[in-house]
Parts: sequence; C-alpha cells; structure tokens
Amino acid sequence: MTATFSAGLPGIADIRRAAQRLADLAVRTPIVESPALNERFGGRVLFKPEVLQRTGSFKFRGAYNKISGLSEEERARGIVAFSSGNHAQGVAASAALFGAKAVIAMPSDAPQAKVGNVRRMGAEVVPFDRFRDRREDVVQPYLDRGMVLVPPFDDPAIIAGQGTVGLEIVEQAAKLGVSLDAVVVPCGGGGLIGGISLAVKDASAATAIWGAEPEHFDDTRRSLEAGRRVANEPGHVSSCDALLTSEPGLITFEINRRNLAGVVAVSEQAVALAMRDAMAHLKLVVEPGGSVALAALSSGRIDLQGKCVAVVLSGGNVDFDVYSRMIAEA
Amino acid sequence: MTATFSAGLPGIADIRRAAQRLADLAVRTPIVESPALNERFGGRVLFKPEVLQRTGSFKFRGAYNKISGLSEEERARGIVAFSSGNHAQGVAASAALFGAKAVIAMPSDAPQAKVGNVRRMGAEVVPFDRFRDRREDVVQPYLDRGMVLVPPFDDPAIIAGQGTVGLEIVEQAAKLGVSLDAVVVPCGGGGLIGGISLAVKDASAATAIWGAEPEHFDDTRRSLEAGRRVANEPGHVSSCDALLTSEPGLITFEINRRNLAGVVAVSEQAVALAMRDAMAHLKLVVEPGGSVALAALSSGRIDLQGKCVAVVLSGGNVDFDVYSRMIAEA
Repeated sequence: MTATFSAGLPGIADIRRAAQRLADLAVRTPIVESPALNERFGGRVLFKPEVLQRTGSFKFRGAYNKISGLSEEERARGIVAFSSGNHAQGVAASAALFGAKAVIAMPSDAPQAKVGNVRRMGAEVVPFDRFRDRREDVVQPYLDRGMVLVPPFDDPAIIAGQGTVGLEIVEQAAKLGVSLDAVVVPCGGGGLIGGISLAVKDASAATAIWGAEPEHFDDTRRSLEAGRRVANEPGHVSSCDALLTSEPGLITFEINRRNLAGVVAVSEQAVALAMRDAMAHLKLVVEPGGSVALAALSSGRIDLQGKCVAVVLSGGNVDFDVYSRMIAEA
Repeated sequence: MTATFSAGLPGIADIRRAAQRLADLAVRTPIVESPALNERFGGRVLFKPEVLQRTGSFKFRGAYNKISGLSEEERARGIVAFSSGNHAQGVAASAALFGAKAVIAMPSDAPQAKVGNVRRMGAEVVPFDRFRDRREDVVQPYLDRGMVLVPPFDDPAIIAGQGTVGLEIVEQAAKLGVSLDAVVVPCGGGGLIGGISLAVKDASAATAIWGAEPEHFDDTRRSLEAGRRVANEPGHVSSCDALLTSEPGLITFEINRRNLAGVVAVSEQAVALAMRDAMAHLKLVVEPGGSVALAALSSGRIDLQGKCVAVVLSGGNVDFDVYSRMIAEA
C-alpha cells in the first residue's frame, strides 16, 4: 500500500511543471518583512503574503494547475467544486480563464465577500447547510451529468499547484542570501503545507516544516500524534472558515506525516491578535484562517531566536464587518 | 536665480547615492497588481506599496539619507523635526539607527498610531496646536541649542532619498518588461513626487508624472496653474493628515514645475473608496493620504485605456477607528 501511495504522490517535477503553467497568470507574491516583528520574535521572519495572489488566496495555484491538466473534452463538460470560498474563487477564476462552466457548492454561512466574488467570475453558486448537508451529496447530481470534480486538496495536481508557493519561497530566500530554519504554513486539508513541504525539502532537507491549525480543528496535529488520520470532534465553531476541514486527506496526510516537524494549534484570540499585527506592522489584510501561521509564532513552540523563518499568510478574503470586529476586540 | 537653483537641485547621482546608503536598511517594496482593478481601469496598474516600507511610509528613505549625510559632530548635537507623523517616524527610526537623540514636534491631533510609534523608537515628542502654533516656533528653542533640523521635504537630501522609490519603480518595470506611460504619486510638500520624477524622467522622459492631492489642499495643482507658489486657504479639514502642507517647497516646486504633467485633486469620498479598494483588491491597509493616487485613477483625468501606469501607495499609518469608519462609510 505504502509503495503504491509513494508512486501516486506528487513530486518536485510536478511542482516545477505547475510553476510553468502558472507563470504570467499567478502573482509571484513578494517576501515582506517587519523590523518591529523581527525585533519582537528575536529572529528574521520572511512573510509570504498569498493575500496578494489572484483571487486573494493561494487556492488559484492548485485549481488552475488541476484544470489545465484536464482534457479539452473534460473541460467542456464543466467543472464542479465544493468550498467555503477560497477554493471556490480559485476554481471560478481558473474555469473562466479556460471558458469552462463552473458550479460551486458553498456553505450558506460562507463570507459574503467570497460568495460575491465567485458569482462575479461567472460561476453558479449552490448554497448548502454546513451542518446538515453532506457536501458530497450536494455536488453528486452535477457529477452524474458528467461534470468534473476539482477537489479542494486531496489531489496530486492540486498539491503540486500549491507547492509553487514553496518553490518561490526557496528561490526568494536564496536571492536574499538566507538559509531557512523553518517554514510555517496554515493547515486545513493539508494541500498547501504538503505541496510547500515537497518543494522546500527538495531544496533543503534540514528546513523544518511547521503547520498551524485553529484549536478544535487540529485534525492534522492529532493525526500526526496518533500516526493515523483522525477527524475533528463536531460541534465547534471557529472564525477560520478556510480551515474547517473534518480530517486530513489521504494523499496530503501521507506527505505531511513524512515532512512535518509538528503542528501548533492556535486560539481564536491568538488569531485576532495576529490579524491586528498584520494590519499594524505589515499593513496587510489577512483573513482569520490566513493568519494562523503568524499566530503560531507567539506560541513559543517554534524556535525563533536568531533563526530565519518563512511564514505563509495564505488568504485575505474576509468580510469587512468580521475584520473590523476581530481587530477591535483583539 | 534659476541658474543658482538648478545648481542646487538634487539629481540622479544623488538618488543613486541615496539608494546605496539605504540598501539593506530600507525595504525594497514590491510591485503588486490586481486583475480586478486592471479590468476596471482598462489598463495595467502597477502598485508600489510604500505602506510596506520600514516605519509604514516612504519617509524613512529621505530621513535616513539626510541624517547619514550629516557629520558625526552634527548627529551628536541631536536631530529635530516637525511632522504630523510619517516624517516623524522616519526621522525617529533613522536617528535611532545612528544612536542620535531626536526631538519631534507633532500636532496634538496627529494619529495616535503615529505618536506612539515615534515614542517607542526613543524620540521625544513635543505636541503643538496645528491651528494656533507656528511649527517653526515650536522647534526654534531646540535649534538654538544646536540641534540639527531635518526638514520634511524642501531639502535636496530628503528629495534624493524619496527619489529611490522612483529608481525602484524604473528597475521593477524594466524587469516586468513594460514601459510606463505614467506614474501617479501622492503630493504633500512635493518631496516624494519631486524625487520620483527625477528618477523616472532620467530613465524615460516620455513617462508622464501625475500628482494627487486632497481637495482644498491642492496647493501644488494651483501653483502649477499659476506658475508660482500659492498657498492653501486656511479653514479646511481633511482625513489626509500626511498631505496637509500649506504650500509647495521652494526646491520641490522648482522640480515639479518642470516634471509634472498635472495634479488631480480628489474628494474625501474618493479617498475612502480608494482605501476600500485597496483593502478589497490589494489586501493592503493604506492611510487616507497614502491612497490619493489610487483615488485619482477614478477621476477620468489620467488616460488609462490600454496604458501601463505605476501608482504609489505612500503610507499605511492609520488609527484603526478612523480606518474602520472610513471603510464602513465608503
């Protein structure tokens, strides 16, 4: 089983191919730094703001890579996806670039900014109840009609696309002349951190890959401890709508169990403080789920003293009222 | 007189020297783009976010360049400056890097974020009444003691430092393989746009340099029309605290009368809308005065159809309650 799985896992060649496909379409997001935050953490923190990515999160990378790998005949049948919003936007934007029809199942409590953007990009939104409906059931009728599913994370092409973030971090750190002690990445289903880990480990096996999850949604943290995939307990809520997956993916967990140093679970309060720090010191609007890796720096779990650490800010699609309330209360 | 003035004006060599002094200290701010805004404006807009600069605005560049050009003996006597906040922070950070004492006269209604940052950097803040006191009178006792004034804009070393923004824009546009039809820059005293115009015109004389000012504080716009320096009428208010100079500088106006294509005056409402656009599409926190160049794009005055235009977002130091209110009302 493991051997079969190894054969099916994406690798550095897939990530490089994804980077070629994404050139001129994805934003090569910059590295930004804050002297004030460097001073506070006692090390050098290189932020990779995927909030500046097309559609406001890293998700465009994976979705576009996946859809560009489909045949023309498959794309003509149309694309279907389920997502709380960032993957939805990535899929809608990518489908539009190929002129393909897209249907996206989105929870009815998804941020309005995300729902509005998906509709503006020409996709059909099918709302569902996050607690009552199984999202697989919602998309099934569309799959029955022959439309092609673009999954949110557990797919080699999706993971390879997200891995281009890691490729850029490696290249940008080299250009700055620094060697990375660690990379800290938000973790939902594990596609982003899995892809980044493949790219970073290929260049520098000694660099530690740390995940960050919201508390009560730390399925990857607990799965790594248990040595097998375990799901989150139902009944909890979190502001981090982008990270509320129920359990790690099969492929993503297989990658992450090999490559991750650990995962830090962060509180709602730590998330709000990180959003405020991003506003005050980086002048960046970061959504709750996008700020968990910055929040993890304050946990004391990750050694920062004199170190150089890259931190991914994975998305910035947040409704203004939520943003305003969380910053005000932080 | 004009000949003497020409001799005293900063040039491209001064800007290149400033860039060498600032290397490794100033952030080389990236170029960011929004497909949504490109679509709306019908051209390609390259944003230069100096909100990501050390101290949250471009002002660090000029202040550091000026102070690094002083003698050790001068720096030992201490630095004095007056500023609503961004220049104050630039001076305080630069003085701290040289271990020099700094005294900053700040209006008592300056944003608390700015006042707090200046104090945290070790400078002494002397509050004054923006409407009652002459700021020159406030700093005079410190000058009498031998401290050295670092003026906010009307100084060749300050202008050369701010000009490094233009040098970077030229280099970054070349790397992207685009030729710039125009550069749009916020204008207060005119140091930033003056410096940028020198760098951009040196590389490409055909690139139009446009200024943006808040309405009622459009002294540079009216001075260009009058062919001589004219002051703003007193009694108006604006959210753009960074741009409330009373009239153009002698040196800055001499540069700007030669290099500017024109200046667009923007309303408070246009400023708030630009701040919201920067949040929604660029995920950047931009202060009111920092967003006037983006606001100017919607005026219809600057030709954008099929053009490539660089827009400077000059600062992001805004108190959260002001930010929140302006975005909510936009």
